[in-house]
Amino acid sequence: MTGSTAPIKITTKEIAQDFLNQYDTFLFDCDGVLWLGKHLLPLITETLDLLTSLGKTLYFVTNNSTKSRAAYTKKFASFGITVKEDQIFTSGYASALHVRDSLKLTPGEDKIWVFGESGITEELALMGYESLGCDDPRLDEPFDIATSPFIINGLDPKVKCVIAGLDTKVNYHRLAITLQYLQQPSVEFVATNIDSTFPNKGYILPGAGSMIESVAYASGRTPAACGKPNPNMLNAIVKAKNLDRSKCCMVGDRLNTDIRFGVEGQLGTLLVLTGIETEERVLNTAGDHPRPKYFAEKLGDLYELTN
Amino acid sequence: MTGSTAPIKITTKEIAQDFLNQYDTFLFDCDGVLWLGKHLLPLITETLDLLTSLGKTLYFVTNNSTKSRAAYTKKFASFGITVKEDQIFTSGYASALHVRDSLKLTPGEDKIWVFGESGITEELALMGYESLGCDDPRLDEPFDIATSPFIINGLDPKVKCVIAGLDTKVNYHRLAITLQYLQQPSVEFVATNIDSTFPNKGYILPGAGSMIESVAYASGRTPAACGKPNPNMLNAIVKAKNLDRSKCCMVGDRLNTDIRFGVEGQLGTLLVLTGIETEERVLNTAGDHPRPKYFAEKLGDLYELTN
Repeated sequence: MTGSTAPIKITTKEIAQDFLNQYDTFLFDCDGVLWLGKHLLPLITETLDLLTSLGKTLYFVTNNSTKSRAAYTKKFASFGITVKEDQIFTSGYASALHVRDSLKLTPGEDKIWVFGESGITEELALMGYESLGCDDPRLDEPFDIATSPFIINGLDPKVKCVIAGLDTKVNYHRLAITLQYLQQPSVEFVATNIDSTFPNKGYILPGAGSMIESVAYASGRTPAACGKPNPNMLNAIVKAKNLDRSKCCMVGDRLNTDIRFGVEGQLGTLLVLTGIETEERVLNTAGDHPRPKYFAEKLGDLYELTN
Repeated sequence: MTGSTAPIKITTKEIAQDFLNQYDTFLFDCDGVLWLGKHLLPLITETLDLLTSLGKTLYFVTNNSTKSRAAYTKKFASFGITVKEDQIFTSGYASALHVRDSLKLTPGEDKIWVFGESGITEELALMGYESLGCDDPRLDEPFDIATSPFIINGLDPKVKCVIAGLDTKVNYHRLAITLQYLQQPSVEFVATNIDSTFPNKGYILPGAGSMIESVAYASGRTPAACGKPNPNMLNAIVKAKNLDRSKCCMVGDRLNTDIRFGVEGQLGTLLVLTGIETEERVLNTAGDHPRPKYFAEKLGDLYELTN
């Protein structure tokens, strides 16, 4: 799957201004675009300020489900960037929206078993849903079928859904109990996102998809995946913010998630080369990935070229 | 895939004797056939003694890689059954044979990264191979890319193979370092077996395949799987013991591993209903599994019917 026209590299003031004039709303992936782990990329603050001064609206769309939107505002603040919670969409929030708006579970009554981190449970709690699992310290104990409180006390019949995502506290206890819930056909199975890996400090580490695949294989079930590139996430954003897709641009560092998300969602697309992709892959017409409309060495080039 | 003739249920003395007369060698799966967890099934000792008194040769073939063959002889002994180490084939041993005989790694020089338990490393050690990973207590520490000794000290260039199997100590540290080795195309990828689950005390728990799938998905690689139903395991046994396949019978409790292993290996097959399968499934001609030549409520029926 390739775009019909060759990607345009943003290398001159004219191209940059032409790009900026086409869109009034920008959706940004974060890691690999704005920062790498704990390090802000060059000229990010200046570029975001430029866009704001031009009257553009900015949203931040991340497949990272380990942090809630509230925690993300703090991450932005730590870089000196002020972002409001309602500008942020995480895959954990998208999963909670799916539970509420698609599965229509009842807050205060139906419960959710979370194989993942607090970025999911915090969003569920804001919608009134009680979570089980997650970082419950009893799950840190080695699994013993004869003593696990989750086995001894039985499964909670109020659990109507399993949400699975990246969990750096993954262990056999969590896998085993998650599987017990997934063996009940009436319990829904939701995945935050299916990224197999993510980059960190020059290493490629196991991502949410890698962990979700484990319980999917054991249960023989396929989850509904909520993060990029699933269109449900974009549909939720477009609906919540009443966006005109033709005036929106998705900015990301991954062809298979960010750019696919933008292309399939009929948005403009900008790929930056500060993350996981190379110019060679962007220009390759034989790949099985969508190609962006625009690409740039770094997001900061928008500021650098127009100032 | 179904057998050409309907499975014969062993319900009379005549059928039992006819069955026994056809074979001089019996390959047994263990869990679900001889015992369930820590409980020996009825008349097992009597049946094994009967077979031995009739001059039959007995082998034990298990996909459990958590115990070595030496440890298995102790498990048999705990039930009062005397079995020699060379009558036992585990998927951990099969994996070690694969490393030695197919990959032809050099003992004393090439090393193996083990994401699994000591049933693998003990077999490797007997062949002279040094293992890394496995139950190394440093892997029990929470993963931190800045402090993990496996990251700080770098990957061991002598590691030429990853063996993955069931690991009840699975955690993010083990997944992350296993992935680092699998990202090297020159490092071979071997799986003990691909069972997605296994039964324990009435519960279905995540099996080796469920854990292996996680690192397979993250690395985008497919392992060479050594346990049942992979024919390499049977080929190794047939070669080591100089067996006549037409005189061998595989006895198991799973259609998709044990019976597939026997049917595809051109052995006779006996399914017992003391494990995971039902008579309905055995007789179902529409299933996608092979059907056994014989089936019985329990292995002990062979003794009960002929005495």
